[in-house]
Amino acid sequence: MTPDPSALPEVERELSLLLRRARALSAELSREIHPDIDAGGYALLSTLTEAGPLRANDLAELFGVDKSSISRQVQRLERLGLLERRHDDSDRRALLLGATPEGRRRLAAAADARRLRFRARLGAWNEADVTHLAALLRRLNAALG
Amino acid sequence: MTPDPSALPEVERELSLLLRRARALSAELSREIHPDIDAGGYALLSTLTEAGPLRANDLAELFGVDKSSISRQVQRLERLGLLERRHDDSDRRALLLGATPEGRRRLAAAADARRLRFRARLGAWNEADVTHLAALLRRLNAALG
Repeated sequence: MTPDPSALPEVERELSLLLRRARALSAELSREIHPDIDAGGYALLSTLTEAGPLRANDLAELFGVDKSSISRQVQRLERLGLLERRHDDSDRRALLLGATPEGRRRLAAAADARRLRFRARLGAWNEADVTHLAALLRRLNAALG
Repeated sequence: MTPDPSALPEVERELSLLLRRARALSAELSREIHPDIDAGGYALLSTLTEAGPLRANDLAELFGVDKSSISRQVQRLERLGLLERRHDDSDRRALLLGATPEGRRRLAAAADARRLRFRARLGAWNEADVTHLAALLRRLNAALG
């Protein structure tokens, strides 16, 4: 079956809008973590917390940005005590970057606040719509993955 | 009606995954526009093309990043001939940043390629699911906006 020619462009437009909303939200959350970190620093700290300690090169590749952009963010987060460098046990010459306990604590607090806000916004939806949205997003991710 | 307690966290998880996928895709697209620009440069050029010429301050606020991060991206895009600075007619001291015709051309080509890939991935969905996804994303955006 061919999809409705009018609905696919609408999905594209709504996804673009959703990504812009998500970017604005990240900017907001980053300021809640610390007034001196920006959306890029927030994304970096969040990735290090989720994906464990990583090398700067891995982060640069993951974000599709220059290593110099990563280095600036790393220096700033380190100065704020939210990120630390440690030696890689499997390769003593390599440095691994990871969130400090304080970094993880602040990130968790921001994530809780985001979750509460998200749930407040969607709290009025009926069960069937939430379940359907979850299922369609899962299929969308599978299709794009 | 209260939403299913198991479905809302799933929507959150799928949205997080979708955002990571979108970030990886942006990194890929940025390299197609020019091997020397990264995901940040792509987002900046794309915003300038959609939202018209803007000042560096407006861009920094929009992206939730430092003006210095914006300046680095602007310099790089300008050097590549994809972005230009011009005087603001309403305020001769102010500079507006905008995409060059070449910047717009490359961005449009990358957007076409992205659209084709997206449609190929969702081409097998039936009409009802695509329409339903569009409607739920529209409601989600309205709820988050």
